[in-house]
Amino acid sequence: MDKNNLKIRFDYNNMMDKFVGSKEGIKDSDILEMTPFAKNAYDTFESIRGTGMTGWANLVNYNKEEIDDIVNCAEDIRKNYEYFVVLGIGGSALGPIAVFQALCHLHYNDLPSEKRNGPKFYVEDNVDPERMVALLDVIDVEKTMFNVITKSGSTSETMTQYLIINDILTKKLGDKAKEHIITTTSSSKGNLIKISKKEGYKTYFIPDAVGGRFSELSPVGLLPAAVLGVDIYEFLDGAKFMNEICSSSDLDKNPALMSALLSYISLRRGKNISVMMPYADGLKYIADWYCQLWAESIGKEVDKKGNLVFEGQTPVKALGVTDQHSQVQLYTEGPFDKVTTFLAVDEYRKIVKIPDGCEDIPDVNFLCGHTMNELIQAERVATEYALTVKNRLNRTIYLPILNAFTLGQLLFFFELETAYMGEMLGIDTYNQPGVENGKNATYALLGRNGYDAKREELNNAPKKDDKYII
Amino acid sequence: MDKNNLKIRFDYNNMMDKFVGSKEGIKDSDILEMTPFAKNAYDTFESIRGTGMTGWANLVNYNKEEIDDIVNCAEDIRKNYEYFVVLGIGGSALGPIAVFQALCHLHYNDLPSEKRNGPKFYVEDNVDPERMVALLDVIDVEKTMFNVITKSGSTSETMTQYLIINDILTKKLGDKAKEHIITTTSSSKGNLIKISKKEGYKTYFIPDAVGGRFSELSPVGLLPAAVLGVDIYEFLDGAKFMNEICSSSDLDKNPALMSALLSYISLRRGKNISVMMPYADGLKYIADWYCQLWAESIGKEVDKKGNLVFEGQTPVKALGVTDQHSQVQLYTEGPFDKVTTFLAVDEYRKIVKIPDGCEDIPDVNFLCGHTMNELIQAERVATEYALTVKNRLNRTIYLPILNAFTLGQLLFFFELETAYMGEMLGIDTYNQPGVENGKNATYALLGRNGYDAKREELNNAPKKDDKYII
Repeated sequence: MDKNNLKIRFDYNNMMDKFVGSKEGIKDSDILEMTPFAKNAYDTFESIRGTGMTGWANLVNYNKEEIDDIVNCAEDIRKNYEYFVVLGIGGSALGPIAVFQALCHLHYNDLPSEKRNGPKFYVEDNVDPERMVALLDVIDVEKTMFNVITKSGSTSETMTQYLIINDILTKKLGDKAKEHIITTTSSSKGNLIKISKKEGYKTYFIPDAVGGRFSELSPVGLLPAAVLGVDIYEFLDGAKFMNEICSSSDLDKNPALMSALLSYISLRRGKNISVMMPYADGLKYIADWYCQLWAESIGKEVDKKGNLVFEGQTPVKALGVTDQHSQVQLYTEGPFDKVTTFLAVDEYRKIVKIPDGCEDIPDVNFLCGHTMNELIQAERVATEYALTVKNRLNRTIYLPILNAFTLGQLLFFFELETAYMGEMLGIDTYNQPGVENGKNATYALLGRNGYDAKREELNNAPKKDDKYII
Repeated sequence: MDKNNLKIRFDYNNMMDKFVGSKEGIKDSDILEMTPFAKNAYDTFESIRGTGMTGWANLVNYNKEEIDDIVNCAEDIRKNYEYFVVLGIGGSALGPIAVFQALCHLHYNDLPSEKRNGPKFYVEDNVDPERMVALLDVIDVEKTMFNVITKSGSTSETMTQYLIINDILTKKLGDKAKEHIITTTSSSKGNLIKISKKEGYKTYFIPDAVGGRFSELSPVGLLPAAVLGVDIYEFLDGAKFMNEICSSSDLDKNPALMSALLSYISLRRGKNISVMMPYADGLKYIADWYCQLWAESIGKEVDKKGNLVFEGQTPVKALGVTDQHSQVQLYTEGPFDKVTTFLAVDEYRKIVKIPDGCEDIPDVNFLCGHTMNELIQAERVATEYALTVKNRLNRTIYLPILNAFTLGQLLFFFELETAYMGEMLGIDTYNQPGVENGKNATYALLGRNGYDAKREELNNAPKKDDKYII
């Protein structure tokens, strides 16, 4: 494999004034002027790389033996289990879902087992009781491996699922229940490592310096991917390749840094919405994964100095061509409040010819003789064009083909862009203080010990007025 | 059934200053002041109801014989076909997907056929060649009924799928191919009605006065729903009930009108983002359906008088509790640029108890003895609280339970809200001129006759500069 033929490309022509006009477009001189600013963000990030919560950036330098162990474990699961169920939420779910969609058959679970060559796959990332019952209707727990993923072991949703599943397994299988659970958690602290040791579960570790939304290249993402037959060495090598590409503070050489700077400039010019629009069903859930990464990392009330900044850019997921028939009307005609990022693939993994037909209906017959591949590419180019002539900022990331290597590049590109953006904004990219209050209120509502003050606070909150309910 | 026990409730307490503070909150006096404005929007809509493209508003007054015919046809399909595949995009896909998710088992296609009691269900709303191949890998076309849905019959995506499927069917089944295709299209114009007559397909009609995004209560939505075993009389009756509830220009009695006014005020105060966040997996794709309705209806470059307005509010879909671990950090701490609408259900259709376990780990054990139902409700209330104390505008729509009747109410509530909002903004709610340029560019790129000028225009567009590709 020649890596350079598989390099993803970042095309930001349509962010520039030459293409979207001088009012909306970014000028060469804007970028030139901000080059020291970008370089500073790069240098700051490099100076903290691997420390604090930036351990994710070093996951590309993997230890082959550790990966071999994951692959061997996955091979066992592929042979011996008919179902593989991830119990996890947020960063413990979005990466596994995205990789599954990208690198497996698009109707994987519907394939007969001899075509699947691996277990059916489910990711349970909600606590809706209807969904839990639905899952139990379609799996046989005695033929299922559950992967419980939570770094702290205090994630209420995941631990609730664990309690329910462990209870069912233990009642059915007694001591053998433990053969159906693998945990992925912190090695040093938290509840799940304690439980795992006590129960004797096989356990994979999430490094302390890796947060949930940056954990896809850790066992969080690697075990599910390997169970699905993904080449996780290629996946990691793709990320490593992107890391090498971005090992320069030169904007013209570091696409993630350039992308971060363009995001920064756009945000400062009032583009408070970032649309991620892949033109491939396989990339659909990359948009969901990106939405967590961008929203939680960049959306912050205070900067590092403690100043109130209410920073953030709202990520929006769309799918080409589908959402041309849902969102593009707004994107071309609505407010100038967005940047759209298209994800394109040069070569789809299948070719479908559009056959002859409807000879007497020219409105339809012109399609005949083309391929679906030509159609989806034409629609992508046409949508890009339609946005551009309406002076709407947009950019495109091209994947030569969608595979483990290019996907690894893409994910790492976004992780680096996010890290650089956080430094540009001067915020803490890696915390999420805004979810604490909701968590504590949940604990209080469920009567957990130690949350009396929060319960009191909730009781003293203004009561809802019936006149505002109709 | 007592309809009033099943009435959905619109709670806008947390839009008001008493709850989110005087800076962000809306005052009683704001609403009072704008009451004539809201009444005017209501009156304007009522004056055009049923004319132009507002025929959707009269779909609630259905003809029982027409619905009986759909139900009978659906019964035949349920008995005689193992797969039911919708070929459609945008408004022809989002409603069927939303109803499927809401009213069928959450892993419906994974159930064994004796538990499903109906065909497996797929909605193909993209032209990715990988997805078309994947579909053909998991269905047997000889046991499949295809429902081709496009009002005009000139939707490139749907007609491409039709050409491919018809070719396969004809090669396998010859003359009997037509027994595997039902079309849903305009009775009076377009290509698909011509094709249907020529080929002898069973056809259902979309009224001329009903546009794609408002078509769920027409055969577009009703046939797929009936095939899935949904009680479509109840569904329509739910919509009709909401229509009755909203038959007043009194803001305190018409929840859709009040919701539209609150949306209008928020938009004018800079809230350019509208988040739809259901707390139920069953309601997940209602958010997608809403996103099309709101984006395409409200996102407009010009008002009715032709003034440039660049109107629009970007809809964002989220899912509770899942996206608490992805988006809520941004919603509580980021810019004050959103209104969040929660969808709640009072009673889930299943109850799951959280069993005892982890007795030595209080961080986990406090969950035991509760139900998943209590947990998801507590998390919803806690998230609402966390947003409210951070002065973030939010509102909640409660469904007593999720069923066909309440779902009909909910969809019609949003359709009415959108109609009122369009009148408040003075825009054409029912057109979508912004997608034309992209369509025409696609035609030009595919070499369709009659698009030479557009081809010329594309050829003359500025060429991309390699220096902006890294």
